[in-house]
Amino acid sequence: MKALILGVDGYIGWPLALRLLNRGHEVAGADSFFTRRRVREVESDSAIPIGTMGRRLAALKENGLHMEFLRGDVSNAAFVYRLIEETKPDVVVHLAEQRSAPYSMLGLKQASDTMYRNVISTLNLSYALKDLSPGTHILKLGTMGEYGTPNIEIPEGFFDIEYKGRKDSLPFPKFAGSWYHWTKVHDSNNLMFANRLWKLPVTDVMQGVVYGTRTRDITDTSLFTRFDIDEVWGTALNRFCAQAVAGLPITPYGKGGQTRGFLSLEDSITCLTLAAENPPEEGEYRVFNQFDQHYSVNQLATYVKEEYERTHEGKAEIVHVENPRVEKEEHFYQPVSEKLRHLGYHPSGDLRVDLRSIMNDLEKFREKILSLKKVITPRTFWKSSSGLSEKPSGR
Amino acid sequence: MKALILGVDGYIGWPLALRLLNRGHEVAGADSFFTRRRVREVESDSAIPIGTMGRRLAALKENGLHMEFLRGDVSNAAFVYRLIEETKPDVVVHLAEQRSAPYSMLGLKQASDTMYRNVISTLNLSYALKDLSPGTHILKLGTMGEYGTPNIEIPEGFFDIEYKGRKDSLPFPKFAGSWYHWTKVHDSNNLMFANRLWKLPVTDVMQGVVYGTRTRDITDTSLFTRFDIDEVWGTALNRFCAQAVAGLPITPYGKGGQTRGFLSLEDSITCLTLAAENPPEEGEYRVFNQFDQHYSVNQLATYVKEEYERTHEGKAEIVHVENPRVEKEEHFYQPVSEKLRHLGYHPSGDLRVDLRSIMNDLEKFREKILSLKKVITPRTFWKSSSGLSEKPSGR
Repeated sequence: MKALILGVDGYIGWPLALRLLNRGHEVAGADSFFTRRRVREVESDSAIPIGTMGRRLAALKENGLHMEFLRGDVSNAAFVYRLIEETKPDVVVHLAEQRSAPYSMLGLKQASDTMYRNVISTLNLSYALKDLSPGTHILKLGTMGEYGTPNIEIPEGFFDIEYKGRKDSLPFPKFAGSWYHWTKVHDSNNLMFANRLWKLPVTDVMQGVVYGTRTRDITDTSLFTRFDIDEVWGTALNRFCAQAVAGLPITPYGKGGQTRGFLSLEDSITCLTLAAENPPEEGEYRVFNQFDQHYSVNQLATYVKEEYERTHEGKAEIVHVENPRVEKEEHFYQPVSEKLRHLGYHPSGDLRVDLRSIMNDLEKFREKILSLKKVITPRTFWKSSSGLSEKPSGR
Repeated sequence: MKALILGVDGYIGWPLALRLLNRGHEVAGADSFFTRRRVREVESDSAIPIGTMGRRLAALKENGLHMEFLRGDVSNAAFVYRLIEETKPDVVVHLAEQRSAPYSMLGLKQASDTMYRNVISTLNLSYALKDLSPGTHILKLGTMGEYGTPNIEIPEGFFDIEYKGRKDSLPFPKFAGSWYHWTKVHDSNNLMFANRLWKLPVTDVMQGVVYGTRTRDITDTSLFTRFDIDEVWGTALNRFCAQAVAGLPITPYGKGGQTRGFLSLEDSITCLTLAAENPPEEGEYRVFNQFDQHYSVNQLATYVKEEYERTHEGKAEIVHVENPRVEKEEHFYQPVSEKLRHLGYHPSGDLRVDLRSIMNDLEKFREKILSLKKVITPRTFWKSSSGLSEKPSGR
């Protein structure tokens, strides 16, 4: 299989490239280094140091692997057309979108940028494949956050309903919680339509929150993937682990009853690989809900505290902070995730074991984590997203 | 009431300004003349001649009316902020989006332009009102086309459902039929979220297809609104009337079983005025389905033929042409439209009488219609939407 990974320099993109290469696939990757630049803009950095792409490619070589890399931005149609023409892939894994909810909520500029960048990149990809390689499988990263928190079970993309005595199978209604999350809804809608128009085969992945420092392919520090913990680019569980290791309070937002689907980095890579190696039927648009278990933020904070204290002398403290987001802090949550299991996905580990292994990795970067302390506290408040030519809220 | 109409130079915008002015409201209007430029690009023109904005404003003056006009593009955030700051309206009627489904399907360039222009303009407006005038009512034009043609009744925006033994009230799932229609879905989603974030009061209007040359306020040829009949900028029923009058075949697309909600221009203006004069509750996001009746394309073609033949010597011919769109040509269709009726909307006329009056107006422009003959035949085929740096399909 020939895979093209858009966003290959990212948290998911890099370990996915490692996995596909190790499984003997041919891999080309593209990136614009958008995330690296934007993370620097908020005076943050990956808590685990990562090399430049040049060093990463050299590290691959040392491991007997080779990946073709092309630098460019997928919101540029000409670049996407060139990519497809040059690589003619069997599958394009599209991970090259602006991926931070808080970034999209900083202000109008960032909201517009996220709308434009994400929606246009997926449109460019759809047209480029329609024109140059219509049989290529589009494996697109969406988010479980597209669904929001409805008071009914969340199916995988579509549901059969009866309404006023008549029946239909319809897309499940979405209700996202940030401009970023809405761009993923817009993308899903546009991809569903591209499939209707041109029969492009699509897997739309509704992924839960990913945690972890490792996959089985990250055997060496030169192969580490980025690890973000700041309030803009970091995610909850990874941040909690870093906070515990650095002796900082673990900070759930608000009441902490918010419940989401989670999965380990290892499992995310396994699922994406399964999806890539088992493409949709001809002309099929399919939706996978990709997560292992669902947890409340409070449960996760407690697990991190307990696992930290089990393996260390000191105590870890949990401190609830004001929730910068607009979201329900107590709600029903019951999403379904069956299709990936039917393809053979078995969750790889035990959350508590994973947490210990993450904290073990992070011990080596304690100083680095402490240096990021000032960018951990939430300052991007949804309700006060900045307008035109104001400074981003709280800055 | 002080109203700001974005897109005041358009088919709906201009007669809405007339109505609101005649009802004693203060009106400011903005336009970038996007539609005029783009209509010229496809070598078309309004079948009914309209004056420049300067002439239109002079015609208002002759009728004892005054409207403030500001030229600019609402995809420019600075312009939108300036508009709101200078006009401080009670209601903003947002009609300033790229409004042609075929235009959006010409190719990637036009698809991207439509995505960007429409989504960003509504985002700009949301932020400008949040920052400068959060109590202002956003009256936004969407389309019944957002819903597609589900096999169940279409409610007004939201529906109460039971699924696997649990209940919720959720946004009705959308399935649009062109990139243009999808931008309206994206806008609806973004507005729903802006309302959730900042409690902005919103009326999201799902409008049917509008037909007609007149409203009660268009008392003089100097006050006519534009009337498009070409394959890109025209709409079905208006085109059928023009075809009959010019002795050209009436051309339903495909089998003609496609069924949609329709309403007269008079009724569209009445409904928008009702919505403007009866704003939402504080912090409310409401959805109005705005149409009079639903008809199949075949029914309408037959009505036009019959009314033409009733009033003329000659015969009118119906010729089915290849459907350029990707849509069901036979389907269930049962949309609800109750909320505007609760506010006092009574459909003003009888379709057959309206058709005779439209054809009567168009008689005077028979030569103009004949000069547009070459741009009436569909050439924009959904399935062959052009990619990068190709010529638009069929040109």
